Amino acid sequence: MPFVRIDALRADGRRLEALGQAVHDALVETIGIPYNDLFQVLTSHDGTQGVVRYGDYPGVRRDDDLVFVSITMRSGRTADQKRALYRRIADLALGYAGTEPRNVFVRITENESIDWSFGDGVAQYAGLEQQPNGERR
Amino acid sequence: MPFVRIDALRADGRRLEALGQAVHDALVETIGIPYNDLFQVLTSHDGTQGVVRYGDYPGVRRDDDLVFVSITMRSGRTADQKRALYRRIADLALGYAGTEPRNVFVRITENESIDWSFGDGVAQYAGLEQQPNGERR
Amino acid sequence: MPFVRIDALRADGRRLEALGQAVHDALVETIGIPYNDLFQVLTSHDGTQGVVRYGDYPGVRRDDDLVFVSITMRSGRTADQKRALYRRIADLALGYAGTEPRNVFVRITENESIDWSFGDGVAQYAGLEQQPNGERR
Repeated sequence: MPFVRIDALRADGRRLEALGQAVHDALVETIGIPYNDLFQVLTSHDGTQGVVRYGDYPGVRRDDDLVFVSITMRSGRTADQKRALYRRIADLALGYAGTEPRNVFVRITENESIDWSFGDGVAQYAGLEQQPNGERR
Repeated sequence: MPFVRIDALRADGRRLEALGQAVHDALVETIGIPYNDLFQVLTSHDGTQGVVRYGDYPGVRRDDDLVFVSITMRSGRTADQKRALYRRIADLALGYAGTEPRNVFVRITENESIDWSFGDGVAQYAGLEQQPNGERR
Repeated sequence: MPFVRIDALRADGRRLEALGQAVHDALVETIGIPYNDLFQVLTSHDGTQGVVRYGDYPGVRRDDDLVFVSITMRSGRTADQKRALYRRIADLALGYAGTEPRNVFVRITENESIDWSFGDGVAQYAGLEQQPNGERR
């Protein structure tokens, strides 16, 4: 279910794949996403048709290796799960893509079970409840 | 009001337009969006600067014809309206673009009336209530 | 914290930068965002691999200068702050980029403090409350 969008500057396909895999493995490890529950759009911006702008708020030294990770998922994950997720994304982005933790920016947007159709014109999650621990019934 | 973003892999302009129209007609038919209430950004990714990754969760056989449809709209639509929307998007994507239902992935994100400015620096919906049937007062 | 995405049609890097700066200055002036709290992805679509579609709802005459501005930020801003933001974005887009107010489309999506990691694998806002006036404690 998580839908992941990653935006980076002048990244080749190999770096994009590595970053995508880092985020996916972190989701699997920290909040129990099934391994085949993978939906990602990864974009490299060239600096002219696609521009990335950033500051150093809140005291983080970034450079053009900056990666924006946007995750949409159902509500129900705890604060501790999200903290573990951020930690693990940063670790794996370094391990898989050599991207330093200071350059990994993550934001989460939540919606509900009825807000997903995984194909076939059906709302597969409709009626499913989300357990506080992130597992599905 | 709905803002629609579509991401596909190696789609030409014609396929993008057909997919956009499928989503728009489905919104008009199933949740009463005015026909001129059309706001879409459609992107074709080339597989290197723009990469799309996917698994087969939850048991859906996808291939590179996969289309990600992201819809942002005000809260207030019922579960039944959303189900009808997913069904109709899948039907029309097949009819207009030849995209099989298994390759149509949809997610919805909701916000509120105050969260939209349609131009002129004004929050046109502010103060408007949303009827449960999706019509505007 | 606000994450800003801008989509425009056949805009050069200079116009993208000017539009990005317009949105950022408006956020700083109307809702008290720190100046270095800048996170933007600006995309120019070429009309074939990236397509922008629009209608004239709700009675706004748009053309290919249309700009879609998408802002994600924490909940807590008031309706008045959002109105001021829309007004100021339209004014500055005209002043900086020559984009007419009728061509400036803005939508806001909100999330919570725990939903942001600004780098270093940490949820920097976790536990912070948001004041109604938009200032942070």
